[in-house]
Amino acid sequence: MQVFGHINGYPEGSSFHDRNEIKAAGLHKYHINGISRMLGVGCDCIVLNGGYIDDRDNGDEVLYTGEGGRPEGSAVQTFDQPFTKGNLDLSKNKFTRDPIRVIRGPKLRDSDFAPKDGMYRYDGLYYLEDYWPDIGKDGYRIWRYKLVKVDNSIIPPSASNIQTTRKPVTTNRINRDQSIAKILKKKHDFTCQVCGVRLESHGQPYAIGAHIMGLGEPHNGPDREDNMLILCPNDHYLFDAFAFSINDDYSLLGREGSLRTVLSHKIDKKYLAYHRERYKIAKQ
Amino acid sequence: MQVFGHINGYPEGSSFHDRNEIKAAGLHKYHINGISRMLGVGCDCIVLNGGYIDDRDNGDEVLYTGEGGRPEGSAVQTFDQPFTKGNLDLSKNKFTRDPIRVIRGPKLRDSDFAPKDGMYRYDGLYYLEDYWPDIGKDGYRIWRYKLVKVDNSIIPPSASNIQTTRKPVTTNRINRDQSIAKILKKKHDFTCQVCGVRLESHGQPYAIGAHIMGLGEPHNGPDREDNMLILCPNDHYLFDAFAFSINDDYSLLGREGSLRTVLSHKIDKKYLAYHRERYKIAKQ
Repeated sequence: MQVFGHINGYPEGSSFHDRNEIKAAGLHKYHINGISRMLGVGCDCIVLNGGYIDDRDNGDEVLYTGEGGRPEGSAVQTFDQPFTKGNLDLSKNKFTRDPIRVIRGPKLRDSDFAPKDGMYRYDGLYYLEDYWPDIGKDGYRIWRYKLVKVDNSIIPPSASNIQTTRKPVTTNRINRDQSIAKILKKKHDFTCQVCGVRLESHGQPYAIGAHIMGLGEPHNGPDREDNMLILCPNDHYLFDAFAFSINDDYSLLGREGSLRTVLSHKIDKKYLAYHRERYKIAKQ
Repeated sequence: MQVFGHINGYPEGSSFHDRNEIKAAGLHKYHINGISRMLGVGCDCIVLNGGYIDDRDNGDEVLYTGEGGRPEGSAVQTFDQPFTKGNLDLSKNKFTRDPIRVIRGPKLRDSDFAPKDGMYRYDGLYYLEDYWPDIGKDGYRIWRYKLVKVDNSIIPPSASNIQTTRKPVTTNRINRDQSIAKILKKKHDFTCQVCGVRLESHGQPYAIGAHIMGLGEPHNGPDREDNMLILCPNDHYLFDAFAFSINDDYSLLGREGSLRTVLSHKIDKKYLAYHRERYKIAKQ
């Protein structure tokens, strides 16, 4: 049975000679492919092994490239990656928060974190923080996945000398200033700027403060009001998935209607332009 | 500054003589009160110290009682707990997924997990899996919070003999059969049964398979189609927060409209009755 999380008997740091061993251990569904799919549900494991030129491996943070866009056997991308199969299933982990096992392989290029012994190595659990479309080095659309290592700073200091291949792991939590979202929600009276809905239960309103240009690598959008929107959960999903975007005159792109604005909340249009660019790549 | 997560210098298992020490260490905002609030944002820490008769401590799972409902200095509840202040802020962690530090105190009653040395003990990070209203032993409304310990099975076996007070922690992940939700979403064509919206991005529809009676302790609802609804994120939020409920004739309670049904999806009305009961307690 395919499961999320650690596999009994294979702690972080476990080594494997080849993909068949990894498959037999139940860590990855396939003996080829990077993305181990749970069909229609999510992704339980990925392998980083230098297969995609656009991959970036920063250890605790990985920018992973989706699959496809290349003729079989070719290392060069000659068409856009579709948002189907493994690419679609991997995207679901953003919403389910299911953890993804990350395995690094011997062919990993340009990475300080590649195994040096010619083996594959299980490197623990990561969350999918975000995904978005981009143009890869070969000039075609790729789907980008930002994986962030599960914070295991819960290991107390006295455990630092234990005999494993574990490296100290820093927390990757992005510090958001929650007071910014709190003030902005009040300015909009918790009303969605896209559809105008205002959710409320037991007299308490609920809305989401969403960043237009994402925080952290690689976007590095600022944690400021002029890079934020107040959205209901439905429109937060759609905006984050690039189902629609927003023009400079606040009319919606790919959807009827206009953004609701209040004078006290200024939006910097360069962030809207950044989102629109991704919307257009997703759409192409 | 108040932060979520571990506090440097105070690993899990750290002991404290009193509440002032805990406050000074930055683990909890107050020297009294169970709930450490980040105003309007969430909760970063709770103290379990036997103050509320309805608390249930199962170690990795805690049923925590909200605050209030008692005259100052009284141990007996004489009125309904309001959904404000600490109770409201703690509920937010369900959606933000921010971790909560749990501290157990020397007065913890009826718990196998209470410190035996007269000290307070920091017991690591928990997530808020769910919250709901209930009637407490004193006959008045309480708010119930189910906290589940962060899965730290990521510690490899070789670490089991390290010198800490850490106990082996089992994974509390509830195994949901994702294929049930997948099939049910198709039956409803990913259309929300409450509002009829169908979210889609890049040709891929999105909806949530929501359980009417929650899985796991203490509800123990079954993971079956007849205990599920297909909802959009907005109505999932509202249904889970008991902002509305559903009558046996599928008309909505506390809201205009009726549940959309398909013949191939039968709902067991005893689960609707269970949800309605909580809706009514929340409303009283």
